[in-house]
Amino acid sequence: MATVIDGKAVAQTIRSEIADEVRRLSEKYGKVPGLAVVIVGNRKDSQSYVAMKRKACCDLGIKSFDIDLTEQVSQVDIIKQVHELNANPDVHGILVQLPLPKHINEEQVLTEISLEKDVDGFHPLNIGKLAMKGREPLFLPCTPKACLELLSRSGISIKGKKAVVVGRSNIVGLPASLLLLKADATVTIVHSHTSDPESIIRQADIVIAAAGQPKMIKGSWIKPGAAVIDVGTNAIDDPSKKSGYRLVGDVDFEEVSKVAGWITPVPGGVGPMTVTMLLKNTLEGAKRTLEQNS
Amino acid sequence: MATVIDGKAVAQTIRSEIADEVRRLSEKYGKVPGLAVVIVGNRKDSQSYVAMKRKACCDLGIKSFDIDLTEQVSQVDIIKQVHELNANPDVHGILVQLPLPKHINEEQVLTEISLEKDVDGFHPLNIGKLAMKGREPLFLPCTPKACLELLSRSGISIKGKKAVVVGRSNIVGLPASLLLLKADATVTIVHSHTSDPESIIRQADIVIAAAGQPKMIKGSWIKPGAAVIDVGTNAIDDPSKKSGYRLVGDVDFEEVSKVAGWITPVPGGVGPMTVTMLLKNTLEGAKRTLEQNS
Repeated sequence: MATVIDGKAVAQTIRSEIADEVRRLSEKYGKVPGLAVVIVGNRKDSQSYVAMKRKACCDLGIKSFDIDLTEQVSQVDIIKQVHELNANPDVHGILVQLPLPKHINEEQVLTEISLEKDVDGFHPLNIGKLAMKGREPLFLPCTPKACLELLSRSGISIKGKKAVVVGRSNIVGLPASLLLLKADATVTIVHSHTSDPESIIRQADIVIAAAGQPKMIKGSWIKPGAAVIDVGTNAIDDPSKKSGYRLVGDVDFEEVSKVAGWITPVPGGVGPMTVTMLLKNTLEGAKRTLEQNS
Repeated sequence: MATVIDGKAVAQTIRSEIADEVRRLSEKYGKVPGLAVVIVGNRKDSQSYVAMKRKACCDLGIKSFDIDLTEQVSQVDIIKQVHELNANPDVHGILVQLPLPKHINEEQVLTEISLEKDVDGFHPLNIGKLAMKGREPLFLPCTPKACLELLSRSGISIKGKKAVVVGRSNIVGLPASLLLLKADATVTIVHSHTSDPESIIRQADIVIAAAGQPKMIKGSWIKPGAAVIDVGTNAIDDPSKKSGYRLVGDVDFEEVSKVAGWITPVPGGVGPMTVTMLLKNTLEGAKRTLEQNS
C-alpha cells in the first residue's frame, strides 16, 4: 500500500515556518508582507477560494488587501486597480482570482501585474525564465511548486527520474513539467492528443496528474512504487452528501493507492499546499523588497 | 533505407520565396527588410557564421547592417550599440553573434534587444509565450523552427506523434520541445541526467538530436520508420581532409539511415535551414513593422 502524503500536515508545518518568518520580518523592519486578492463578481467557487486565501493570510500575520469588484466592472477599471496595487509599497503580492468575466481579457489584465508582485508566477516572462537554463523566475507558480515541495518533503528525489505530467495547462501542467526538467528529471508531457497515455504513464517514477478528468488514472497505469501527485479537483455527484457532490482527483485513489509508493489524496493533498505556496511567495516577495530597501 | 531530407534544397526553395516577398515589400513600401548582425572579436567560427548570414541577406535583397566590435569592447558600449539599432527604423532584426567574450554578460546584452527585433527569439518573454498555451511569441528561435519546417515540408505530421528531443539547451533543445508540444506531439526531453536514453528514443516517431555529442545516436536506438532530425554539428579529426577535420552530427548517419524513415544529413540538413529561418524572421519582423506603420 502506498504511503499517503498528508498535504494538510505538510502545509501546516510550512505555514508555521512562514508565520515565524513573518514575525522576524516584522521585528526587523516594522513591516509585514501584504497580499492583495482581487475578485471580480459573485462566482461561488471563486468567492470560497478567495475567502480561504484571505483567512490564511490573516492566520499567518500577512496583511490582506481585499479588492472586491462587481461583475460589471470594466477592463480599464480593473487595470487601474492593478496599477494602484503595483504602486502601493505595502502590497508585496497581487493575485487576481480567475476566471474573470467574459468581457475582460485575462491576458491583458495579468500582464499589468508588476513582475515583482506576480506571486502567481503566471507572467510570460516568469514562465520563460522558468523554462530556460541558467535563468530563475522571481516566483514559481503555486501549484507546481506545491507538487515539488510535497515530493521533496516526502524524501522523493527527482534528479534522473522519469516524470510524466498529465495535462499541459499554463497554470499547472506546463510549469510543472518545466520545474521537473529544471530539477533534472526526464520529463514527458501527456495531453489530450496523446495516443496510449497508459503505456507512457506506466513508465513513470513520478506522475503529476493535472488533466481535470475525474478518476482517469487507474491502478493498472501505474508503475509499482511510483510517486503519484494528484492535482485534480473534480466535483462528482454524490447523493449521500448533503451538498449532493464530493471532490475526487484525476487519480482513482482506491486502485492506485494499492500500486503506488506514494500518493496524495483529494481533498487534503495538493489543495492545502497550493494556498500555502501563495503565502510563501508573498513572504519571499516581501523579503526581497524589504531587504533591497533597507 | 531512409529518405534523406535535403536541407539545402528546402532552404533554397524558402529563400526564393523570401526573395519574392522582399521584392513585393520593396514595391509596396519602398523599403526592404534590414538585419543587423553584431559580432564581437575575432573568433574564426563566429566570423564565418556572420559572413554567411551577411552574404545570405545580400543574396535575398535584405539590407545587412554590419557591426564589428573589438574583443575589448565594454558591455556598456555593446548595449549602447544595441540601443541605437533598436531605434533605427531601417533595422527590423538584430542578431548578436554568440558567444560573447568572457567579460561580457550575454544575458544582459540579449535582454536589451527590442522584442520586436529579437529575430533569434531568445528573449525570455518570447520563450515564455512559446511555452504557454494561447500565447504566441513574436519570433520562433531559428533552429527549432528549421527542424519543424523540415518535418512539415517532408510531409511528416506532428500532432499525436511521440517526439523525443535529445538535449535541452536554451537555443535548440528546450524551444524545440516547446514547439513540438504546441504542435500537439507527446514530447519527452532527454538530457545528460537521463538514465537509459536508448529505450526512450526507441519509442519516438520523431527524434530531434541536439546534444552536441558526435554520432551518439545509433541505429539500434531508432524505431523503424522514425523521422530523425540531426541538429548536431561536431568537428571530428579526419586526416584525409586538407583541414584535418570533418563535420558529423549527433546521429550515426550510416547506421540510422538504414532504420529511420527520414533523416537529415550533416552537413546539408538543418544547417542551411537555420540561416534561412533567420532571414524569414527578419522578413516577418519587417512586414509586421511596415504594415503597422502604413
